[in-house]
Amino acid sequence: MAQVRSSKITIQDDYWTTYRKLVRETVLPYQWEALNDRVPGAEPSYAINNFNVAAGLKEGEFGGFVFQDTDLYKWLEGVAYALIEAPDASLERWAEEAIDLIALAQRPDGYLNTYFTVKEPEGRWTNLTDCHELYCAGHLIEAGVAYYEATGRRKLLDVCCRFADYIDRTFGVEEGKLRGYDGHQEIELALVKLYRVTENEAYLRLSRYFLDERGRSPNFFAEEWERRGRVSHWPGNHARPNPEYHQAHLPVREQRVATGHAVRAVYMYAAMADVARETEDASLASACRTLWANMTRKQMYVTGAIGSTHHGEAFTFDYDLPNDTAYAETCASIGLVFFASRMLRLEARGEYADAMERALYNTIVGSMALDGKHYFYVNPLEVWPEACERNPGKRHVKPVRQPWFGCSCCPPNVARLLGSLDRYIYTSTEDTVYVHLFIGSEASFEVGGGRVTLRQTASLPRSGDVRFVVSPEAPGRRFALALRVPSWCGRDAALRVNGSAVAYEARDGYAVVERAWQDGDTVEWTLATPVLLLEARPDVRANAGKAALQRGPLVYCFEEADNGAPVSALSIREGAVWTPRYDPDLLGGVVVLEGDGFRDAAEDWDDEPYRPFRRAVRPAALRAVPYAVWGNRGVGEMAVWLRVAASPRA
Amino acid sequence: MAQVRSSKITIQDDYWTTYRKLVRETVLPYQWEALNDRVPGAEPSYAINNFNVAAGLKEGEFGGFVFQDTDLYKWLEGVAYALIEAPDASLERWAEEAIDLIALAQRPDGYLNTYFTVKEPEGRWTNLTDCHELYCAGHLIEAGVAYYEATGRRKLLDVCCRFADYIDRTFGVEEGKLRGYDGHQEIELALVKLYRVTENEAYLRLSRYFLDERGRSPNFFAEEWERRGRVSHWPGNHARPNPEYHQAHLPVREQRVATGHAVRAVYMYAAMADVARETEDASLASACRTLWANMTRKQMYVTGAIGSTHHGEAFTFDYDLPNDTAYAETCASIGLVFFASRMLRLEARGEYADAMERALYNTIVGSMALDGKHYFYVNPLEVWPEACERNPGKRHVKPVRQPWFGCSCCPPNVARLLGSLDRYIYTSTEDTVYVHLFIGSEASFEVGGGRVTLRQTASLPRSGDVRFVVSPEAPGRRFALALRVPSWCGRDAALRVNGSAVAYEARDGYAVVERAWQDGDTVEWTLATPVLLLEARPDVRANAGKAALQRGPLVYCFEEADNGAPVSALSIREGAVWTPRYDPDLLGGVVVLEGDGFRDAAEDWDDEPYRPFRRAVRPAALRAVPYAVWGNRGVGEMAVWLRVAASPRA
Repeated sequence: MAQVRSSKITIQDDYWTTYRKLVRETVLPYQWEALNDRVPGAEPSYAINNFNVAAGLKEGEFGGFVFQDTDLYKWLEGVAYALIEAPDASLERWAEEAIDLIALAQRPDGYLNTYFTVKEPEGRWTNLTDCHELYCAGHLIEAGVAYYEATGRRKLLDVCCRFADYIDRTFGVEEGKLRGYDGHQEIELALVKLYRVTENEAYLRLSRYFLDERGRSPNFFAEEWERRGRVSHWPGNHARPNPEYHQAHLPVREQRVATGHAVRAVYMYAAMADVARETEDASLASACRTLWANMTRKQMYVTGAIGSTHHGEAFTFDYDLPNDTAYAETCASIGLVFFASRMLRLEARGEYADAMERALYNTIVGSMALDGKHYFYVNPLEVWPEACERNPGKRHVKPVRQPWFGCSCCPPNVARLLGSLDRYIYTSTEDTVYVHLFIGSEASFEVGGGRVTLRQTASLPRSGDVRFVVSPEAPGRRFALALRVPSWCGRDAALRVNGSAVAYEARDGYAVVERAWQDGDTVEWTLATPVLLLEARPDVRANAGKAALQRGPLVYCFEEADNGAPVSALSIREGAVWTPRYDPDLLGGVVVLEGDGFRDAAEDWDDEPYRPFRRAVRPAALRAVPYAVWGNRGVGEMAVWLRVAASPRA
Repeated sequence: MAQVRSSKITIQDDYWTTYRKLVRETVLPYQWEALNDRVPGAEPSYAINNFNVAAGLKEGEFGGFVFQDTDLYKWLEGVAYALIEAPDASLERWAEEAIDLIALAQRPDGYLNTYFTVKEPEGRWTNLTDCHELYCAGHLIEAGVAYYEATGRRKLLDVCCRFADYIDRTFGVEEGKLRGYDGHQEIELALVKLYRVTENEAYLRLSRYFLDERGRSPNFFAEEWERRGRVSHWPGNHARPNPEYHQAHLPVREQRVATGHAVRAVYMYAAMADVARETEDASLASACRTLWANMTRKQMYVTGAIGSTHHGEAFTFDYDLPNDTAYAETCASIGLVFFASRMLRLEARGEYADAMERALYNTIVGSMALDGKHYFYVNPLEVWPEACERNPGKRHVKPVRQPWFGCSCCPPNVARLLGSLDRYIYTSTEDTVYVHLFIGSEASFEVGGGRVTLRQTASLPRSGDVRFVVSPEAPGRRFALALRVPSWCGRDAALRVNGSAVAYEARDGYAVVERAWQDGDTVEWTLATPVLLLEARPDVRANAGKAALQRGPLVYCFEEADNGAPVSALSIREGAVWTPRYDPDLLGGVVVLEGDGFRDAAEDWDDEPYRPFRRAVRPAALRAVPYAVWGNRGVGEMAVWLRVAASPRA
């Protein structure tokens, strides 16, 4: 019954190959060590140990968070993507070892969760609000599907199906079933994947059930809390569950504003888009559009980050985007990519891909150190390292990437996203191939009634020259190639087919060229990469009077390493020309931006804190580096947004 | 033995009489109602009820915080000051009623604390870290001393002495005594007051003991915590006490940087200055100077507020002065005034009075609504009301003053400070009368070998014209009059004696004129009140590129009510002329400042969050009002610091 994915996409791209190689050769092996608690100086994971104990192979206690299993599942999913790309004997051996262990830990009825098996065997499904059982199941399923796609081997997929079948017997509106849903969304999107690979419609129905049920009145979490005796899994927390935090304050179709825990939110929106597409549910699709618009137009940082507060790792409200106390969790931007890619499958609109690219090239890539072994959980847009240590309101912000986290959701999530990057580049319909991301790759599609191979070469983020070679299996296939016109090119995008300029139809953010394609047809898509000085709308209080630099998909920042401290003393000269310069020796080779600005003079101050305004400024040559590589040169200040100042009058 | 204070000072001043009348006629009666839990809609105080229960007059439970008694003590101290000013039958009757109740609640051994009497009779002195027993005792003593000074009646003073004697028997380095000190400093400064009024040196020695003992190694709080079994008074807090929070991380003479809970800190520094003076302790005086310099030059807001974070209501570190997440507690600025006034008694230096005046005219006055019935606990320098509600990192900031607080330390603290304002205006030595504050008043001093009456008339904050009439009991007394040269006059201060300009010696921030004074000599002290545009040093990241307005002692702010929202979209035009204009109808009559600026244009934005920088600004007429009266016109945005922008080039 199950099908291996029909279109294989191979990435061959200078920029991304570096990161994907890092994932394959460094990140995944490093994380395997971390999962086995063998990284000196890092917080322990406990993940593998928990499975050993649950499987009865070891004596011991459960360690880590109630959702610790997912670190292993996400790693395994990342390994699956690496194996799809190319064989790797070590990764495969470790994966098989992990899968054997997971299968041993599954209970005879299909249930699988090391926390409840080891620590609270009687507690299954009694605290969906806090305990992430279905969330863990979802990550297991994502791993199982990916590993099946990678290897064709069913062992882990069968574990997933047994568990999903058990969940299906347990949850639902029918008499005798538990009418609830998880505190952390994830199972919903995973079940759609399982449905697609197994074609078992029960899984799609179950996903839809979880979405339909969520936010109904009376609130399930409140009722469950009463049944539990008003206690929480988290010690010291006696508060009634906050439905907004879990996006359970309203039925999902009635939600208009992105609220609550940001990762929970975007995972749910992604599932809503999936189910809307699979079931042709217009009201669900409409809710997705509304939530997308609110999130990306009113609650998204210029780096594609979301989640303005560390309290609940959550959205706050429209235009509240503080740079220095931002949460901007890596996983939330990954979830934004999930949501965007599903919206693109629902309807190709450039704005989805624009935001997806923004999150990918800035927050997500930036969350990982150039060594592949250190990570940001929080991705601030402004850092004063001393404040991170000594102002408790900024303690969640780290000025340098960390080797691992007690709650280590982000590192393996980056690995699985980068490993599956090929899946975000294109979508296709019967008559159109859409190119959303400009990443060198080879792909084939069923389009225009036959199979077509497309070879993309690209040089982002360094330059905007993109080229395609089209190879239909049978010559003369008629179909459209729809190339995204990214917002950063300033509409300066030229299309040539076989060397000749061609007019194109602009449609929803894409340049659409339809023709009968011959084997070897070449398409040149030349995107300008001007240095953009961006401003935020005045509603964003935090960025008043400030500007940020962007070139191509990369947002830039100013680091102490290049510009001295305090970075807040710098301002950009209004009207300055910013010159991109490729520096092969800096941070693995990056395009830096150089331009004129000012530095508030500090040398003529005595020790007074305040004095009559003089605006003593000195000209300063400023240098910006891509935000994605900040914090790779030791501890220092950083800011994405700088003040813009006119030249002082002579 | 005890002496009523020898110099009586009467305030007659347009500006301050309004506030003092408010305290007498509204604040103290209102707070009496609050203490009796009779204010509808306000959080209950429980204070009077607790004394009734402790005295055995009522059955019931203890309510409120462990330090709830101090609300009554501080109120009583405020009443005492009001009675010193003028008789008031109601206030006196309530005070006597309260004193009778307090006396009944005292235990036979002298101990007095309703929490421990009612709730934990076996728990006395077992948790000095958390439980504020000596802090409460200190406030009792301050009230007892003030009430004795007001009325000459000893009942409450005797209660205080009995308690102080018991404390003296309990604490000390001697064998068998408890060698500890309180988690919240206050007893130290109170005992100096009790010593001064009773002349019993044991109280001074006890105060000094508490200071000398603090911060020694091994740490008392850590040891006490171990003895208690590692528990805290505060539920859910299992952390080892943080000595920095309590200023017990180092012996007090070795402390160099203001750290920890801001109110604790300044109360302790005030006591250190007292003891340094009374015992002529040079090392203690030196520590005071160092801490003063750190606090006022590196950790003080332009409004005279201190305490940058609500986490622990604490100092953070040098130059960390965020405007929107500030704690800036009212009580901390009151404590700053205590510290400053004691430093002035130690040595007359204008900088102490400058900071004292800054705190007084801005944060302290501003903490109370014009109706006298609403208060700020937190005094932010920038407010976006929606963020206070919806960004949890700003939940401690209230955009409007509150009717009362569960922890209601600030309102009665304001009442007692304003009530005793006369004590902060002058100090005198054998040969010099120092005028620190320009507040209309009549005072008499022993100076130059005899008694001299000084009548001050002043018109601050509206104008800087100050006048003195000197009346020595015997003509021709030779002494110096030292008039503070406030930092805000820009050294534009003219002195005339009997109509003729007189040169003066500038000494440590004072204009000193020494002569043989005749009865009726007049001194005119004419201080310029230019509108000052202030900048903060570049180390203060939060104020980069911004300026604040000040005129005379008043710092100004920009409110949404005058300027629209968002306030962050406003900027001050560089070089703009700011015109003061007295508006008798606004906020009880204030001088507003009007000048030119810009507003970032919002009307040409679509719904995109970011776009290429255009700097579309419109000229805007800006209006600033005194910070002290902000938030009296409903909920709205406010900012003290605004960007400064050059005019756009044509």
